Amino acid sequence: MPANEPTPDQPAPQGGAAPTHDVVGIGNALVDVITQASDALVEELGLPKGAMSLIDEERALELYDRVGPAIEVSGGSAANTMVGVASLGGSARYVGRVRDDQLGRVFAHDLRATGVAYDVLPATHGPATGCCLVLVTPDAQRTMNTYLGASVHLRADDLDPAAVVSGRILYLEGYLFDPPEAQEAFRAAARIAHEAGRTVSITLSDAFCVERHREAFLDLVEHHADLVFANEAEICALYRTDDFDTAARAVRGHGAMAALTRSERGSVVVTDDGLVEVPAAPVDRVVDTTGAGDLYAAGFLYGHSRGLDPATCAELGAVAAAEVISHLGARPEADLASLAAPVLGG
Amino acid sequence: MPANEPTPDQPAPQGGAAPTHDVVGIGNALVDVITQASDALVEELGLPKGAMSLIDEERALELYDRVGPAIEVSGGSAANTMVGVASLGGSARYVGRVRDDQLGRVFAHDLRATGVAYDVLPATHGPATGCCLVLVTPDAQRTMNTYLGASVHLRADDLDPAAVVSGRILYLEGYLFDPPEAQEAFRAAARIAHEAGRTVSITLSDAFCVERHREAFLDLVEHHADLVFANEAEICALYRTDDFDTAARAVRGHGAMAALTRSERGSVVVTDDGLVEVPAAPVDRVVDTTGAGDLYAAGFLYGHSRGLDPATCAELGAVAAAEVISHLGARPEADLASLAAPVLGG
Repeated sequence: MPANEPTPDQPAPQGGAAPTHDVVGIGNALVDVITQASDALVEELGLPKGAMSLIDEERALELYDRVGPAIEVSGGSAANTMVGVASLGGSARYVGRVRDDQLGRVFAHDLRATGVAYDVLPATHGPATGCCLVLVTPDAQRTMNTYLGASVHLRADDLDPAAVVSGRILYLEGYLFDPPEAQEAFRAAARIAHEAGRTVSITLSDAFCVERHREAFLDLVEHHADLVFANEAEICALYRTDDFDTAARAVRGHGAMAALTRSERGSVVVTDDGLVEVPAAPVDRVVDTTGAGDLYAAGFLYGHSRGLDPATCAELGAVAAAEVISHLGARPEADLASLAAPVLGG
Repeated sequence: MPANEPTPDQPAPQGGAAPTHDVVGIGNALVDVITQASDALVEELGLPKGAMSLIDEERALELYDRVGPAIEVSGGSAANTMVGVASLGGSARYVGRVRDDQLGRVFAHDLRATGVAYDVLPATHGPATGCCLVLVTPDAQRTMNTYLGASVHLRADDLDPAAVVSGRILYLEGYLFDPPEAQEAFRAAARIAHEAGRTVSITLSDAFCVERHREAFLDLVEHHADLVFANEAEICALYRTDDFDTAARAVRGHGAMAALTRSERGSVVVTDDGLVEVPAAPVDRVVDTTGAGDLYAAGFLYGHSRGLDPATCAELGAVAAAEVISHLGARPEADLASLAAPVLGG
């Protein structure tokens, strides 16, 4: 059967083109500014520990003045996930906007150097490339402060439909709901992908982000997404419960598969057929949990794009997440394909 | 005795002001772009492994396109050294120029956040903040490619004499000899410091750099410096010999003390009284040797500024160097004062 002939499960894509990538991710393009900080400093600065706060430029400068020396590493939740997919040997594309400044060039270089397709033109005016000031405390927890900068320039009419449908799976980060215009881009991308018969996956990103956009997320999860990623706090925030099992039951039955992460307790995949529990992969020393969810999603998406069963997808997610929390920064330093080989029987 | 009264060893400083810092360092202000690379890539790119090559903007972009994902960490040899002095509990000041761009702000932040005094105004026009593209190979060796950028803007008449004499010790990096105008600044700073009765120390920085400016370095080492830092390759390049002992004998007798580093073989301090050998400090795993010499100098300078004997100075250097080669990047991640406490009997 020719690769682009429609099957019952997969209607004819818009324009009829077959997917050229495994996954296309859309998100806020950010460079992480990572600094090690004491719990006392996090408290003194009034930061909600473990969460992501949106900050304006003034606050970004104020916080930057108060923290210690930092390292700059490309980040952005969906971008980290696409790097993970590429590192696993998959084919990934990223859509998100930077400015034509130094950190924008760093962001674009680091994506392309990992093999992720990235061809969104940088903004030539307006705010600088977005940054996330990450305070890593001695317990390896990360407290994030995001200045969206040029990522707010991603608008619905910036989206190239051909790019959106170029992946077997579309992956949308929930953080994209924060810039109002990107929210429109989010919905447009989901619609375009669905019309082309693609799988639409989303991540809830952050419990506070869920609180900010709860109704919209509920609608997405229950009616528009085929695959949902969330951690315990996020899925509980979505269903306004303190109980994980209640939340997991609530997400079931909407036709979407949900991959729910529980830190060191591993993950639970909720499918129409039931729940699959997969343990976390062992880590010698947890250094920085930034990117754990992003890389879990990378492993899961890679497996899913290859038609693997939910348990194997979750195992791949666990392996990728374990690598990224063993060092500073939210992108893999090791070759994930090698680390994943035992799971894949390679 | 009042602190600022001249002693026989230390004539009255210019203007009579007592030093407010332990060390003032002058160098090329650079942000390091660190990437892990295979030996095959280093060879394919035609880079002299282990050395520092000067590159222009075009070559910098060409190389950047060829390497994998990178992290950005503030660097610059003398700047790394000043950060080390500050981390040991000393008081340090840095003189070097960046541009008023994103990486320039990163550089300034990281220095000040470590407690190093830094008040050189960024250039408002001309080339961008200088960068060093560092390729770290699996053997932990680093191959450096420096685009000097805005550091060439450091000119003799930019030097604030009050800043130059504000340290008990002036520390000049040999790399500063590459930009012609900075070379003038180098000589002017040495003269001003000597006239004020300060100790003048220099580092030879890189064997190729010594080759490029050999006569000038010989003149400096033999007539103008009180304390010289060099590794084995550099001191051998200076005296055109393959034999370390010959080079060590040659440097003796000019009145300057020389601290000569020999990687895992430790260091040798050459004084008028003879040679002092000090072993290297143990390291679990050498990850990236970038900054080893810079941090050795930091430890030595810290000890010297406090009047400690050469062996103790070298031991402090060894401890600081061991910390920096145990991770990526040329600046300490741990608190050096704690690591140095056993050496200092603290």
